[in-house]
Amino acid sequence: MTKLPVASSSEFAPFLDRLADAASKAIMPHFRQGFAIDNKWETGFDPVTVADRNGETAMRALINETYPEHGILGEEHGPENLDAEHVWVLDPIDGTRAFITGLPTWGTLIGLRTRGTASLGMMVQPYIGERFAGDCQAAWYHGPLGTRPLQTRPCAGLREATIFTTTPALFTDGERGAFDRVEASVRLSRYGTDCYAYCMVAAGHGDAVIESGLQAYDIVALVPIIEGAGGVVTTWTGGSPCDGGQILASGDPRLHETLLRELARQA
Amino acid sequence: MTKLPVASSSEFAPFLDRLADAASKAIMPHFRQGFAIDNKWETGFDPVTVADRNGETAMRALINETYPEHGILGEEHGPENLDAEHVWVLDPIDGTRAFITGLPTWGTLIGLRTRGTASLGMMVQPYIGERFAGDCQAAWYHGPLGTRPLQTRPCAGLREATIFTTTPALFTDGERGAFDRVEASVRLSRYGTDCYAYCMVAAGHGDAVIESGLQAYDIVALVPIIEGAGGVVTTWTGGSPCDGGQILASGDPRLHETLLRELARQA
Repeated sequence: MTKLPVASSSEFAPFLDRLADAASKAIMPHFRQGFAIDNKWETGFDPVTVADRNGETAMRALINETYPEHGILGEEHGPENLDAEHVWVLDPIDGTRAFITGLPTWGTLIGLRTRGTASLGMMVQPYIGERFAGDCQAAWYHGPLGTRPLQTRPCAGLREATIFTTTPALFTDGERGAFDRVEASVRLSRYGTDCYAYCMVAAGHGDAVIESGLQAYDIVALVPIIEGAGGVVTTWTGGSPCDGGQILASGDPRLHETLLRELARQA
Repeated sequence: MTKLPVASSSEFAPFLDRLADAASKAIMPHFRQGFAIDNKWETGFDPVTVADRNGETAMRALINETYPEHGILGEEHGPENLDAEHVWVLDPIDGTRAFITGLPTWGTLIGLRTRGTASLGMMVQPYIGERFAGDCQAAWYHGPLGTRPLQTRPCAGLREATIFTTTPALFTDGERGAFDRVEASVRLSRYGTDCYAYCMVAAGHGDAVIESGLQAYDIVALVPIIEGAGGVVTTWTGGSPCDGGQILASGDPRLHETLLRELARQA
């Protein structure tokens, strides 16, 4: 894949593509192939694949070689040097359940946290050949439709809104009640979308993502994409999303305020 | 896209690719673009796009020109010559809600019903550049991973099974109860998958699809793919799936028998 021909204010933007290439090369031989699945938890079903581990190992090696002073926070391996000014936040396969069922809605998440704030991020879908990236000021797409800037769409209120969530089963009972009330008010809701949903909000094909129980590596890479496209990402109480938890991402700041009010009782 | 280099016993197999090319050309300019949405129903939300209508018009023109004696049953326009020996059964965009939210899990369904039975079918995903096809004897994939035969995977029982459904909201209350019981017994369930799920079962990445309220054009194209890959598709009572309704598709005939028993009370 060629380098994204969009200028970014971040000196590290070109490095995103190198990390994406390394992760894709490690992961793709395992997509839609037979492979072993370990259960990460003794209870519940949280598959970890060889692809996941290999993808993170490949990205870590490249970061340690290129920017040895940077920190790394990843899903699969332990944290390194988290007090560094720049910390890479990695999820080699976000949407593991999509991955193991052959669906193309998983992605590799590559985020950069600079002095505690999400500053740069990319979502890579190597099967389709898509990259969504952003630096909080701008966001861009490169894939089968060429290269395009990403821009969220206007959405004044719930009745016009299309919302996404990975599955309502992720919510606690109270959260589920709040989500169900929102869902009953909106135009359309879609499940099973993982990181792909955030990119669709950034691209103006949907209006909000409502999730809970996220980890930092599930969201840091997506914040600069949404913000660069004109959207907003916070916790359900309006705080910084960088530590995960209950996350709300909206394309239109007006819709974000409305959704924050709706979700407040369970935040 | 090149012709699928897999031999089929059907004389009409090469024509699938011509229909796929025509539909893709008509549909793709509208994917991830702004476009008008009509509400097909006065109540409820069932978007019909310009892409849907243009895709079907393009396929109908090619069929009328090439095989004027054949019949056509499509989603968007009226039926033509349904008593013919060969009837093409078309759904230009299966998964309209995925389409309008930018997700790549919709597909163009092109089926051939010969003397009342599904004999040949293709699912086309033009954004990804994927085609899944089958003629009841064999099934094949062509896309980013090259060209491969499709083969379902073994799955002896519910506890090992991964199941798909587009959304539990499609079910009536009684159907929902039956689905919920099955869902509680299986290893993994995935929502939001439309026609894509049937192809993942054919490719051995999942084990069953459980749906209801389907139309003929939602399922005829998929039957020869599932059967050609070694799976089974019937109604919930074990009858012919060609008229739609309550549909069960399984990769392993043993799992199919188990699921038929589970769903029987609501069939």
